[in-house]
Amino acid sequence: MAGVQNHRLAAAVCQAGGLGSLPAAMLSADALHAELIALQDLTNRPFNVNFFCHAAPQPDAEREARWREALAPYYKAWGLDASAIPNGPVRVPFGTETADVLEAFRPAVVSFHFGLPAPELLARVKSWGSLILSSATTVQEGLWLQAHGADAVIAQGLEAGGHRGMFLSEDLSTQMGTLALLPQMVQALKLPVIAAGGIVSAPGIQAARALGAAGVQMGTAYLCSDEAQTSALHRTALLSGAAQHTALTNLFTGRPARGIVNRVMRELGPLSPLAPAFPLATAGMAPLRAAAEAQGSSDFTPLWAGQNTAHIQARPAGDITQSFITAWRS
Amino acid sequence: MAGVQNHRLAAAVCQAGGLGSLPAAMLSADALHAELIALQDLTNRPFNVNFFCHAAPQPDAEREARWREALAPYYKAWGLDASAIPNGPVRVPFGTETADVLEAFRPAVVSFHFGLPAPELLARVKSWGSLILSSATTVQEGLWLQAHGADAVIAQGLEAGGHRGMFLSEDLSTQMGTLALLPQMVQALKLPVIAAGGIVSAPGIQAARALGAAGVQMGTAYLCSDEAQTSALHRTALLSGAAQHTALTNLFTGRPARGIVNRVMRELGPLSPLAPAFPLATAGMAPLRAAAEAQGSSDFTPLWAGQNTAHIQARPAGDITQSFITAWRS
Repeated sequence: MAGVQNHRLAAAVCQAGGLGSLPAAMLSADALHAELIALQDLTNRPFNVNFFCHAAPQPDAEREARWREALAPYYKAWGLDASAIPNGPVRVPFGTETADVLEAFRPAVVSFHFGLPAPELLARVKSWGSLILSSATTVQEGLWLQAHGADAVIAQGLEAGGHRGMFLSEDLSTQMGTLALLPQMVQALKLPVIAAGGIVSAPGIQAARALGAAGVQMGTAYLCSDEAQTSALHRTALLSGAAQHTALTNLFTGRPARGIVNRVMRELGPLSPLAPAFPLATAGMAPLRAAAEAQGSSDFTPLWAGQNTAHIQARPAGDITQSFITAWRS
Repeated sequence: MAGVQNHRLAAAVCQAGGLGSLPAAMLSADALHAELIALQDLTNRPFNVNFFCHAAPQPDAEREARWREALAPYYKAWGLDASAIPNGPVRVPFGTETADVLEAFRPAVVSFHFGLPAPELLARVKSWGSLILSSATTVQEGLWLQAHGADAVIAQGLEAGGHRGMFLSEDLSTQMGTLALLPQMVQALKLPVIAAGGIVSAPGIQAARALGAAGVQMGTAYLCSDEAQTSALHRTALLSGAAQHTALTNLFTGRPARGIVNRVMRELGPLSPLAPAFPLATAGMAPLRAAAEAQGSSDFTPLWAGQNTAHIQARPAGDITQSFITAWRS
């Protein structure tokens, strides 16, 4: 949940008996260090640190220009100078510098999205005793993770909010609902399988257990918790009727991710062939987002959310976690 | 399961204690009458008869021509004369003539796909004491069905095989996985909600129960049962690795339906803006399907299947049904 939480939510979940996660995909090495220090100040329980491990994209000036052209009417409407907008990624994949920071903390669990880091980097993380998790959106991806050093696999169903963790295919038709993906993953893999996607309350937790999950990963359920950094605009959308309609969109980062449908998704279509490769699309949208948000509009904001938004709770993350643990044990 | 089963499968399910369904969407009035007679010969238990109730499409000569043009390379390859291919729907929506046949049988349950028939027709079916079911793919559709006379609603998750029952929107991004759709439907509706999509074995049944389902509707699970009319080509695909990849496609009928990805879906893309309105797209593909199937190829065959194909059983439908009833009760 990069961008909507920091160590506070992770610590609250840990203290309540869950495995709290610190999202590191958008943190510099210094910021990661500061977050880990802050997290350790709040809890001495095991925690997870989550990284993206995408391949850095080839910049493509022509594609970038076409994307800026598609956004030009919006730049004009908001009085923005398109030529002044910087390029460049805001999400850096897991690398040596990150590992250098992480080594001092040796988290109990390190999880990855978009596959796994290069073998020598992964070996380094494993040498600290950290358990390795990664997301699989197909049975093939699950088998790949099992063969390449994961200790458990997160079966990410199509209902899940945020980025699809897909890494062996870009074909969205390969993506399955949790109810179909989870039991097939459990059947095909020797590793424990953690269920993600559409699970926001006790019935979903019990369903995941029935389907053979060794655990559940929940994100949307915490988006309105007291400790989340979710913006007021995002919280308002999550608790409104708009949250009933999410879609996969590549407009905000270049990779398909699930969020509440907003104006820019409606007008450009949620999936645009013009969007630059992940994470380069972020730069073009950023000034529009900033300008709109300054006027109280989420028209250009990624409103990440899963498909099951009917039970989102606005209360302390510890209370939410305790209710989930009770459901898991019942 | 129009096209892959008749009264035999319905009767076998009924005799084992399930509610067997007779698919009537592709039957003439005479054929429906014959099927109902045959079904009643095999069981005196309650059964369901399923109908499509789509609006009849406006023929569109220009769109039809573009579609034939897209298929022209295939016609040529198979030595088919495109100008000799008849137009016209092969699926007729529920109407007065169908109701006339049905009245003599007064099925315990009548179910619809794509909404509900016109109020006066629906009132006529209800006057016989038949319970009315219909599929909803969004909470909004569920509320609409509840307001328009359904007695129970089938929550059709995105995992489901065959046609999406969507009728209030054509936007595929509104479609949810069962794990997200079902609990939200249960929460929003007063009517009983029946779960469909991705449920093929005991764990799925137990998950659906945990999510609040009043029952489950299972289709893919029966596709290889002894009593199904599923073709040998279709059975082979279902039991092969190819079944791991299904997609929504409109190529075969004009409406999005889930089937195993085959050659024509790969080559034209599973969703084509050129495909004529449902059910008119069927005509253009039919001769290709016939020619290919005659040579043992399913390249142009709709291989309907849900996303969960790992537990398909090739055994008597009665045995399958009994195992499901045991799972439901456990």
